[in-house]
Amino acid sequence: MIKSTHIIFDFFYEGEMPHIEQLMDKAIESVGELTIVDKFHHYFNPQGLSLVYILAESHISIHTWEEYNYISIDMYTCGEVSPKNTLDKFLEKIKITKHNKQIITRGV
Amino acid sequence: MIKSTHIIFDFFYEGEMPHIEQLMDKAIESVGELTIVDKFHHYFNPQGLSLVYILAESHISIHTWEEYNYISIDMYTCGEVSPKNTLDKFLEKIKITKHNKQIITRGV
Repeated sequence: MIKSTHIIFDFFYEGEMPHIEQLMDKAIESVGELTIVDKFHHYFNPQGLSLVYILAESHISIHTWEEYNYISIDMYTCGEVSPKNTLDKFLEKIKITKHNKQIITRGV
Repeated sequence: MIKSTHIIFDFFYEGEMPHIEQLMDKAIESVGELTIVDKFHHYFNPQGLSLVYILAESHISIHTWEEYNYISIDMYTCGEVSPKNTLDKFLEKIKITKHNKQIITRGV
């Protein structure tokens, strides 16, 4: 029971660091399948951001490594809704050079 | 490159809701392999907690569903260190009735 979906998407991008928060906010809003209830930021020195969305459906986490042009994303949603559409929307404007996507079914 | 380990541990517990924050704090401290750099809480109404540790190594997230005696945990660590020992320590005092553990190798 309590089946849920966890998508892991790790990737290298080309060019400038994407505006990940703006892109994810817009993706969530325009797809309309996930509900943000809180958002947390941690900025590393000299660079690197960990951004966490707490969702009614569970969470999204994004870690950035600008020194490697690398970003890792987790999208974990409980119940019937999948994070797939929101992830696809988020990625639309990012120039990805290499990636690894894993879709995990969770639950006990 | 940037290989990393993500452990997903979803479980049902018996009896009272475990003191998850206290147990995880102690596990991290006593094992000594992970470094907390920030910690975020979101309390749902009427119940349910989403607790996120930002680590130097990435993150831990814990979601609770007290109405189901259910907890879901993610532990994601970059580089050589694994979250395994800390998870094992955290679980020592929890009475688990059913669980699902998944160990995922991440990276591109």
